[in-house]
Amino acid sequence: MSGNLAIGIDLGGTNLRAALVTRDGTVIKKKKEPTPERILDSLFALSESFFSEDVAGIGLGVAGLIDRKSGIMINSPNIPVLNGINLLNEVQAKFNIPVFIENDANAAALGEKWIGAGREFSDFVLFTLGTGIGGGIIKDNRLLSVAAEVGHMTIHTNGQKCFCGNSGCLETCASARAMVSKVISALEEGRESMLRQLHEGNIYKLTAEDIFRISFEGDSLAREMLKDAGRCLGIGIANIINILSPQAIVLAGGLTGAWDIYIREAIKEASKRAFQGLFERVKIIPSLLGDDAGVIGSAGLVFHRFEEI
Amino acid sequence: MSGNLAIGIDLGGTNLRAALVTRDGTVIKKKKEPTPERILDSLFALSESFFSEDVAGIGLGVAGLIDRKSGIMINSPNIPVLNGINLLNEVQAKFNIPVFIENDANAAALGEKWIGAGREFSDFVLFTLGTGIGGGIIKDNRLLSVAAEVGHMTIHTNGQKCFCGNSGCLETCASARAMVSKVISALEEGRESMLRQLHEGNIYKLTAEDIFRISFEGDSLAREMLKDAGRCLGIGIANIINILSPQAIVLAGGLTGAWDIYIREAIKEASKRAFQGLFERVKIIPSLLGDDAGVIGSAGLVFHRFEEI
Repeated sequence: MSGNLAIGIDLGGTNLRAALVTRDGTVIKKKKEPTPERILDSLFALSESFFSEDVAGIGLGVAGLIDRKSGIMINSPNIPVLNGINLLNEVQAKFNIPVFIENDANAAALGEKWIGAGREFSDFVLFTLGTGIGGGIIKDNRLLSVAAEVGHMTIHTNGQKCFCGNSGCLETCASARAMVSKVISALEEGRESMLRQLHEGNIYKLTAEDIFRISFEGDSLAREMLKDAGRCLGIGIANIINILSPQAIVLAGGLTGAWDIYIREAIKEASKRAFQGLFERVKIIPSLLGDDAGVIGSAGLVFHRFEEI
Repeated sequence: MSGNLAIGIDLGGTNLRAALVTRDGTVIKKKKEPTPERILDSLFALSESFFSEDVAGIGLGVAGLIDRKSGIMINSPNIPVLNGINLLNEVQAKFNIPVFIENDANAAALGEKWIGAGREFSDFVLFTLGTGIGGGIIKDNRLLSVAAEVGHMTIHTNGQKCFCGNSGCLETCASARAMVSKVISALEEGRESMLRQLHEGNIYKLTAEDIFRISFEGDSLAREMLKDAGRCLGIGIANIINILSPQAIVLAGGLTGAWDIYIREAIKEASKRAFQGLFERVKIIPSLLGDDAGVIGSAGLVFHRFEEI
């Protein structure tokens, strides 16, 4: 494959990110914009701005389920305009160089394996903890080509309805969206909390970041909600440990900002639920690449798609 | 590797099985006995009886968690006498030929891949449905070297205590043990059922087979319990579909005898919970090798350990 650079695209529900990445994983340039309505136009324009003869290919990391053979989006709950679209073909036709497509969390796992927190592990599972919860699996130093939708395993048989159509998914109790929704319900029911003083009293504007910040000031509602969500995450982590017995669990996304409450509670819960012999061997660690994991991993698809790194 | 035969051992909580198997997976001889107390002696005697110069190696499939590098049993809840034992070394020292060890359900998955229901699939997950629930994962035509303890994923956060120490595991609601225990509780509480007439009225002697048999006669308690367990199994299957997006789920073990009630209900539940795009692509099928899957797969470890088949 000629060319020493790759363009990595990370197309999530909130942001469209693009980066120009070298063969050793260094980000030379990057850009970010809110996920636009006219996705293809923006994607073409961003790629164009990074394009040169030294670009070996383009890697696309996209939120949703992708049919890897055809390149068609089977289901993208957060970017429904993509459903049924063949992004792979569209981008390939435009630039006439190799194009690769993956789920965004899978791409992020590849990024963490390549030059991030997963570098030293042959087997790990990445959880992306944000508005929703995604996952990516590295096994035997390769990206496992599976859905890895860890946010959509049922952990509460009679749990709350999830955006995916199921109920009781991990995402319905451990994600930022779930946490904010529960805080709002508690405030509506009259619970006391410093959170009432934010956004000029408009509780419907509260964010997960607000909950973290106020939790550090000792607010009991904020702390309780973070702990509840953490316990729930711990169940999901324990399930993955018992099924995939990884060497590490790498945690990424905005919610890891609340490591001392949310993640600590998750680790405590996972330690009670996973097989002891497996829990003792697993390291639960934060992402190293942060928001860049997706673009780096997507670029990595060009150089390392399903190959051993 | 010299020799055209392999000895496959399947050491479960209930039975010790051994077979002499050819390079094409044909069983030439086989033996079975209840899992003995002096396991090593019986294992040596069985292997000895199949031994010849044409034996290339011995494959051990053992119920429990194994440290594959060292060969030490980390945890065997159903055969606790094995905990901390290095079966691999013991057998190797005795016979001085290559010996391989795997979890029994993983070995069964390899057997189904080699010459069973999984032959045509590069990616499938085997569930063993019996007293407990085990699993094995085939990915890219290889056995995935992971714990695959699918019976020990939490699906009811506040569910019943499990033998593994956790609570709410799939096994606590979908296994034969769980089903029998729930039937007994219902009978103790006075529920009417034809099951009362079996075993001279001793409800504590009821088995899962009794429940199937009576369900076919239309007994409402038996049918309700099988359906409840099936729905529970369906949640576990949906979780595996969303995480591992296999081409097939292969169902093995005694409980598959009740396919029309228990498995049918499981498939219905999984169809509601898994991502539609993934569910549509997955085939849910019965094992072909039945009780021989374990010995054939264990022998297969000698010829195909983690190699593409």
